[in-house]
Amino acid sequence: MPPASTQPDVMDKLVSLCKRRGFIFQSSEIYGGTGSVWDYGPLGVELKKNVKDRWWHAMVRMRDDIEGLDAAILMHPRVWEASGHVAGFVDPLVDCKTCRGRFRADKLEDARCLQKPSKRPGEAEQCQLTEPRQFNLMFKTFMGALEDSASVVYLRPETAQGIYVDYKLVLESTRQKIPFGIAQIGKAFRNEITPGNFIFRTREFEQMEMQFFVDPDGDHMQWFEYWKAERMRWHHALGLADARLHFHQHTAEELAHYARAAFDIQFDFGGTLGFQEIEGVHHRGDFDLTRHQEYSGKKLEYFDQPTNRRFVPYVIETSVGADRVTLATLVNAYREEEVPGEQEGRVVLGLLPAIAPIKAGVFPLVKKDGMPETAHRLADDLRRHFPVFYDDSGAIGRRYRRQDEVGTPFCLTIDGQTAEDGTVTVRDRDTLQQDRIAMDRVREVIGARLEATAPA
Amino acid sequence: MPPASTQPDVMDKLVSLCKRRGFIFQSSEIYGGTGSVWDYGPLGVELKKNVKDRWWHAMVRMRDDIEGLDAAILMHPRVWEASGHVAGFVDPLVDCKTCRGRFRADKLEDARCLQKPSKRPGEAEQCQLTEPRQFNLMFKTFMGALEDSASVVYLRPETAQGIYVDYKLVLESTRQKIPFGIAQIGKAFRNEITPGNFIFRTREFEQMEMQFFVDPDGDHMQWFEYWKAERMRWHHALGLADARLHFHQHTAEELAHYARAAFDIQFDFGGTLGFQEIEGVHHRGDFDLTRHQEYSGKKLEYFDQPTNRRFVPYVIETSVGADRVTLATLVNAYREEEVPGEQEGRVVLGLLPAIAPIKAGVFPLVKKDGMPETAHRLADDLRRHFPVFYDDSGAIGRRYRRQDEVGTPFCLTIDGQTAEDGTVTVRDRDTLQQDRIAMDRVREVIGARLEATAPA
Repeated sequence: MPPASTQPDVMDKLVSLCKRRGFIFQSSEIYGGTGSVWDYGPLGVELKKNVKDRWWHAMVRMRDDIEGLDAAILMHPRVWEASGHVAGFVDPLVDCKTCRGRFRADKLEDARCLQKPSKRPGEAEQCQLTEPRQFNLMFKTFMGALEDSASVVYLRPETAQGIYVDYKLVLESTRQKIPFGIAQIGKAFRNEITPGNFIFRTREFEQMEMQFFVDPDGDHMQWFEYWKAERMRWHHALGLADARLHFHQHTAEELAHYARAAFDIQFDFGGTLGFQEIEGVHHRGDFDLTRHQEYSGKKLEYFDQPTNRRFVPYVIETSVGADRVTLATLVNAYREEEVPGEQEGRVVLGLLPAIAPIKAGVFPLVKKDGMPETAHRLADDLRRHFPVFYDDSGAIGRRYRRQDEVGTPFCLTIDGQTAEDGTVTVRDRDTLQQDRIAMDRVREVIGARLEATAPA
Repeated sequence: MPPASTQPDVMDKLVSLCKRRGFIFQSSEIYGGTGSVWDYGPLGVELKKNVKDRWWHAMVRMRDDIEGLDAAILMHPRVWEASGHVAGFVDPLVDCKTCRGRFRADKLEDARCLQKPSKRPGEAEQCQLTEPRQFNLMFKTFMGALEDSASVVYLRPETAQGIYVDYKLVLESTRQKIPFGIAQIGKAFRNEITPGNFIFRTREFEQMEMQFFVDPDGDHMQWFEYWKAERMRWHHALGLADARLHFHQHTAEELAHYARAAFDIQFDFGGTLGFQEIEGVHHRGDFDLTRHQEYSGKKLEYFDQPTNRRFVPYVIETSVGADRVTLATLVNAYREEEVPGEQEGRVVLGLLPAIAPIKAGVFPLVKKDGMPETAHRLADDLRRHFPVFYDDSGAIGRRYRRQDEVGTPFCLTIDGQTAEDGTVTVRDRDTLQQDRIAMDRVREVIGARLEATAPA
């Protein structure tokens, strides 16, 4: 059991803020929504892109032992037989014969009877449940013109299999040597029966997965420990609070039959949701490559020149949900606070500057005396280097609050003094401190402060 | 009819190079492949990411009148009734009663009988064709636990509808005013019966679409002309040759019934493929928003404060295929040439430096005298700023050739002189010129040359 959360539950406030300010919308909202599918709005798409780019930078571009990949969502159906998903990626479901509801047999305590929502399914006397049946969580579709079993393909439920299936092609085209890894970011789909908690568990989601191939007769457990530490370091560097992060070791029951060791990195989302998995670090042994070798009939061995040996490598996997991490950055960043000397408090997203969707607000103090023109020139110049937001609407205090609420680390105000000495006011989101700096140094000053939080 | 191609057919050579060097692999190759689905390998994923980032930079980050969005692939099924895709996104298909093949009735001249491939379907005397039937190109799947018509959802066949459906949410959360646009990059899926030509027409593909909302009583035709010009400019700035690009105006038969005007930007892929659409610029009028208003029962009007009017905006769409543009950059860049003073010629991908997957190769001349250590230090320093490739294997000429073939614009060699005066050789991919520059200025020099080709 993870420790109980000591953090407040800010989820409802976040859902509301995310819609109002354009981070995250319910998908197809005008049609009543699509179940547990979400759209990223103008600010959300930038935040999530920053998180993904940061992962890509740390895992691919900064390393010469990891290669990138972008395998397709639609794969050959045999892939999912080999991976075990066709037979084993199932939830046990029961139907209620009276209320017609369908529920997970292993989560009945959380479910509610459709006719008597105060009762659990089966609790109400007229509600009888069927025996549990196995329900596969993969979305299936049909490729080609015929809708029969020969043309069934699945939407991938994880990106990892694309890496295993392409591992030889990557090896041959890059001349990598073991130990090396393959990293990938991409969409995956699971037909969850009980999704929920905003973008925490959704039917369409995005994964950032890396599979690291190591010598089974070598120091594979050291590599496992290395990746545990390295991935935890990454989450810390993303600005997630130490107290909200910990490891959860898989128990004997949780551990997949082929796994040699597995740890989750859990984040404390606060309230009743509490500590939940945002990343898994798994020692998968040679299970996946051996299965694909067997099902495809193709050799997936690695030839190790220095020792003149052939072997199927072991795999250490790091698998993180891009949506979950994005949600974690929002939960972690949300705070309400008093402002010294002001009556109204403020809501702040204290996002790490490097991942904030907007880096600087640019404001003319008033809409006259050439201030808007100067502010537009400054905004257009900065825009070439990082995202900025021009705002000339309302009192300056309200403009600050609007940027605080979406996590903009800097606000630049052009005022009467700007025309005299070429300086603007730079206001810091967190310290509220205001400094005057020369307009032609703004890009450099903000650039340096962004870079200070940029290395992953 | 587009003009006949004057360019050589390099497709077969490219397909081979792309597999061998890790740009593009057939999906699920070890299982015999997935029909017309492709995976991007280590170099391909970087090239395509650069193309997408460039589009995002030009269309979203550099403009204050366009907002980004990332709507989901799975949308409410009514969306596709409103859009017309359920009823109208169909191909006419015929079956051959003898050879069991299925063919597009409107493309029979390109099809081949499965029993007698020298004949067209129906041409061989024993081959009788059925009457054409309408076949919908959307992939369908089932959401929730029941596989019935109530739970059918589709994989989106285009990203545009996500923009229309979310347009009000974006408007309300950003306080944009007309004219403004919404831009999105994302996967889409079409169950094509006759896909092909490598990544030109595939069943899973990625679109970069922007919908620009304008006043129907205003200068909408000027905006249409603006976007035509702007998008053509973008393709030129991507390095695509002038002679390979032109506009194709939709004829009366090609024009969708609701479209007021439509132009394709075509690129000459060479050989028999020749000029083909890589982008569409479409004036869609108020068709889409009006339909979604009707089907959802939600008002999608815009209130124009200055004129106190309510109206459904007109939409100008720019829709470009990320895979097609990526293929165009490869076709455009591929060249074989003699090298002065050398017996063997070389293959070069003359990619724009800003989109090349690797920016610099870093080579120690020999594996001794501290050169590998110095080269590793330089590579690790540069890697923080752009992708580099360290190579100490084989003769220096071969290392140059390997980088030429994947489009790396610069190669840096650490040699005996480096230890003496701190300089390295910078070799230019296109001019073959070699200059010595101080090692501590390499990042700045290459950075400046990359930036020179970066603005979109």
